[in-house]
Amino acid sequence: MFEDAELGHTLSKEKFDRRITAVRSALLEAQAALKESRAFSVIVVMTGVEGGGRSESANALMSWLDPREVEVNGMGDPSDEEVERPRFWRFWRALPPRGKLGIFFGSWYTYPVARAALRRKRQWGKLDRRISEINRFEQMLANERTLILKFWFHLSRKAVRKRQRELKKHQRTRWRVTDRDRRFLKHYDDFREVAEHTLRETSQAHAPWLIVEGADRRYREMFVAEELLEALKARIAAPEAKASLPATPTPSSSVDQDRTVLSALDLTKTLAKDEYEDELERAQGALAMLSRHQRFKDHSVVLVFEGNDAAGKGGTIRRVAGAFDSRIVRVIPIAAPTDEEKLHPYLWRFWRHLPRHNNIVIFDRSWYGRVLVERVEGFCSTIDWQRAYAEINDFEEEMTGHGVILAKFWLATSKEEQLKRFKERERVAFKHYKITPEDWRNRKKWGAYSQAVCDMVARTSTKEAPWTLVEANDKYYARIKVLKTLRKRIEETLG
Amino acid sequence: MFEDAELGHTLSKEKFDRRITAVRSALLEAQAALKESRAFSVIVVMTGVEGGGRSESANALMSWLDPREVEVNGMGDPSDEEVERPRFWRFWRALPPRGKLGIFFGSWYTYPVARAALRRKRQWGKLDRRISEINRFEQMLANERTLILKFWFHLSRKAVRKRQRELKKHQRTRWRVTDRDRRFLKHYDDFREVAEHTLRETSQAHAPWLIVEGADRRYREMFVAEELLEALKARIAAPEAKASLPATPTPSSSVDQDRTVLSALDLTKTLAKDEYEDELERAQGALAMLSRHQRFKDHSVVLVFEGNDAAGKGGTIRRVAGAFDSRIVRVIPIAAPTDEEKLHPYLWRFWRHLPRHNNIVIFDRSWYGRVLVERVEGFCSTIDWQRAYAEINDFEEEMTGHGVILAKFWLATSKEEQLKRFKERERVAFKHYKITPEDWRNRKKWGAYSQAVCDMVARTSTKEAPWTLVEANDKYYARIKVLKTLRKRIEETLG
Repeated sequence: MFEDAELGHTLSKEKFDRRITAVRSALLEAQAALKESRAFSVIVVMTGVEGGGRSESANALMSWLDPREVEVNGMGDPSDEEVERPRFWRFWRALPPRGKLGIFFGSWYTYPVARAALRRKRQWGKLDRRISEINRFEQMLANERTLILKFWFHLSRKAVRKRQRELKKHQRTRWRVTDRDRRFLKHYDDFREVAEHTLRETSQAHAPWLIVEGADRRYREMFVAEELLEALKARIAAPEAKASLPATPTPSSSVDQDRTVLSALDLTKTLAKDEYEDELERAQGALAMLSRHQRFKDHSVVLVFEGNDAAGKGGTIRRVAGAFDSRIVRVIPIAAPTDEEKLHPYLWRFWRHLPRHNNIVIFDRSWYGRVLVERVEGFCSTIDWQRAYAEINDFEEEMTGHGVILAKFWLATSKEEQLKRFKERERVAFKHYKITPEDWRNRKKWGAYSQAVCDMVARTSTKEAPWTLVEANDKYYARIKVLKTLRKRIEETLG
Repeated sequence: MFEDAELGHTLSKEKFDRRITAVRSALLEAQAALKESRAFSVIVVMTGVEGGGRSESANALMSWLDPREVEVNGMGDPSDEEVERPRFWRFWRALPPRGKLGIFFGSWYTYPVARAALRRKRQWGKLDRRISEINRFEQMLANERTLILKFWFHLSRKAVRKRQRELKKHQRTRWRVTDRDRRFLKHYDDFREVAEHTLRETSQAHAPWLIVEGADRRYREMFVAEELLEALKARIAAPEAKASLPATPTPSSSVDQDRTVLSALDLTKTLAKDEYEDELERAQGALAMLSRHQRFKDHSVVLVFEGNDAAGKGGTIRRVAGAFDSRIVRVIPIAAPTDEEKLHPYLWRFWRHLPRHNNIVIFDRSWYGRVLVERVEGFCSTIDWQRAYAEINDFEEEMTGHGVILAKFWLATSKEEQLKRFKERERVAFKHYKITPEDWRNRKKWGAYSQAVCDMVARTSTKEAPWTLVEANDKYYARIKVLKTLRKRIEETLG
C-alpha cells in the first residue's frame, strides 16, 4: 500500500513554480463557486506519519485558499465538555456547513489507530469495530452532501529516522523532536501495520485515501493542492451525482396489516385518579433519588417522545421533567430546522443538544421525524428516509456505547380519542394554541403514519435503545407507564 | 432592605390552592403568546441565601410552565472551555432566544458577591467595578428586548440556623447541610452586607430585584409565580415600550470636516515589492515565534478588520493568518445574521466565536457593522447604533480584561483608488465574484461612511483596544503595517 510513497518523489522548484499560480487561482475560483452554491461541504482529513509534513502542508494550503471559508480543526485532547459526550460529538460539532471546507488534523482515525498500534497485543476485533463505525459515519456524511478527501502523509522508517537525526543536530530545531516522535519511531512497524489495515478497510469511492509521500515539501504540497482542486472541480460540475444505490421497494414490517405493534396495544387500559397520584409521587420520588445516585454522575439521560398529535406528549414530558431538579433537565422541542442547521447533515441538530454527564435532555419529537413526518409528507426522498434507519441506529449506538441512558416512547391513542381531544382543544380557550390546521391535515393520513410507526419500531427498537409503546388513551395510565419504564432503565444501568 | 422579608410571611394551603390554578393557566397562556410573537426573551435570576428555597421554587415554577420553552441554567463551576473565555462568555452562550425563558441559578452575581463577602478585608472598589459591569450588561439586555426579573431568596440569620438544625436532626435530611451551608452561616453578616449593597446598586426599572422571604414554601412559590406572571402580561401587552431616553442629536466627532482622522492619513505611502517580501517574511516569522511563546498559552488573540470595500481586507487577512499554524487560526467572515442569531442580542453572534487560549480569531467585518453599515443604511434605529458604542466598549473591555489580545484595523483607501479596484475586479474573470451591485451602491455614500468611521474611531479607540488606521492605497504598505502593529501588540502583552 505504501510502496509508491517510498519511491522518493520530488518536485523541482521550477516545476512547482510553473504550476502553482494556476492551481492557486483555480482553487480560489472553485471555493467561490462552492460558497455561492452551498451545494456541498468539504472535509479534508490530514493525517499519517509523525513528521510527514501534515501541518506544513495545511499551512501552505491555507495560504492558497480563501481562509474565510475554511475551518482548520486541530483536534488535540478533548475538553471536559467533549469527554462527557459520545466519541463522535466533537467531530459533529466541528463539521463544516455546506459551502465551506473543514480540515481535520486529529480525526476519527487518530485514537483508534494509535490505540491499536500501541497495545502490546493487537486487538483486531476492537479496531475493526471502530473501522466499521467510521465507514458508516463517512457514508452518512457522503449521503448528506459532503465531499470527503483523506490524505495520509507517509514516510518510510528510514526517512523518519533520518528526519529526526537531522532535526536533533541543530540547537534551533532540536525541540521539534518530541517524545511523541521518539515513541512513534519505536513503534513504527506497529503503526504501519495498523495503518495499512485501517486505510484498506476505509478507502471508499465516496471517501478515498490518498497516500502522499511526505519527504519532499514541494511534492507533497502540490499533491494535496492538485488532488483537492480536481475533487472540487468534479463535484462542482456534478454536485448531485451521489453514488447512491436505487431505493428498494418500501419495506413493510408486516404482511398482516391487521395485527401490528400498534393494533396489538390494549388502548382500554386506564388508571384511577387516586392511584395515579400515588404512583406519580412514588415514581417521581424514585427518579429524584436515582438522579442523586453516585453513579449517575458518570451518565447522562436522553429521552425521546414521539406520538400521535394530541397523544399527551407535553403533559407526560412535564411529569418526567418534574421528577428531577430543574437545573439538570432540558426539554428540546423539535420544530423546523434553523438555516444554520439546514446547512449541516440531518442529525447535526440533535447531536448539538446531547447533554453532559449528570444531565437529562428530553426531545419533544426527534430525529425520528425523518422516518415519520418527512417520509409520509414526502419532505425527503425515499432513499433518504430509508438510509435514516441505519444512521439513527448508529447515532443511538454512539450514545449507549458512551453510557447514555436512552429511552424512546411512542404515545399511541386511537383515532377516536384523538378526535375527542382535537375538539376539546378547539373548545377550551387556553388550549386553543395547541391545535392547528396541520393537525387536522395529519389526521387524514392516519394509515400512512401508522405504517411508518410500525416500520420505525421494527427497524430501530434495539436491545440498548428499545422503543416503549405507550397506551395513551388514558393520560394517567400513559404517564405512569413512562415514568416506571424510565425508572427501570436507569436502575438497570446504575446497577 | 431585607426587613419585609423577615416578617415571617406565610400562605395558607387554602389560599394557595385557591389561587394557583388560575395562575398556572395564565402562565401557560402568557408563555404561548410569548412563543408566538417572539417579541422578547425573559431572564429570571434566582439567587440569594443558601437554603432560601431557590431550587424548590424553580422546580415548582417548571412544573407550572411549559418546560419546552424554558432553559434552566445551573451555572456551577465553569468548564475548561468557559474558563478560557472572558467572564461573561458562559452567560452569553446561555442567553435564551427571544420567545423563550432562561432561568439562571448561578448568575453574574454569584462570584462577585461571594468573593466580596468571603474576603477578610472587604474590597468595595472591586465589587463596585463588577456592579457597574453588571448594570451595563443588564442595560444592554433590556435594550435588546429582554425582560429581566431578579429574585433574591432571603432568610434571616435565625431562620438559616433553624433550618440547618432541623435538617441535621434527621438521618434522612442530614446530607442536605453541606460545607457550603455551614460556611455561609458563619459569614452570614458579611453576605448580608455585600448583598444589600449589590442589590441596591443593581436594582433598576428594567431589571428590578424582588426580595422573597424564603421560609414558607407556599408563600415563596406564589410570590415568584405571580410576579413573573404580572411582568409577562405587562410586557406582552406593550412589548415595545422600552424605557429608553430619546436620542440626542447625532454627535459629530469633528466640527472641522476638512481635517479628520481619515483625511489626515497620508495615502501616498508605498512599499517596494522586494522590501515588502523581506518585511513580510520577517514579520510572519516573528509572529510565528511569538505564538509558540510559553506565555502565549494563557492568551488568545482577536483581530478585527474593517475598511472600505476593496480596501484589501481579504489579502491582508490571508497574510496574517499565514503567519500562524493553521490549526490555531480561524477567520470569521461576517455576513447577514442567521435566524438563530437574529433572536439574540446583537453581540451574541460575535461572542460565540471568541477563541480559547492559544488561539486566534480574525473577524472579517465585525460588531462595528452596527455603527457603520447599519447606521448609514438605516438598518437599525438611531438610538440603537448610538448605544452600540458603549456596548462595544464593554464587550472589548471584557476581552482585554481577560487577557485577550485585541487589535482593530481600519483599511483606508482613497475614493479614486477604490474606483480603480472596482473596475479591475469587473475586468478580471476570477475576481468577478468580489464585486457586487451593492459595492457600487455603498460607494455613493462615501461621505456618510467616512463620517461614521470618524465617529467610530473617536468613540471606540481605547488604550486597551486602539484602532489602527491603515493607509491602504498601497497593498504592500498596508499589509506590513498591519503585521508590524500586531507583532508589537503581542510583544507588549507577553512582555
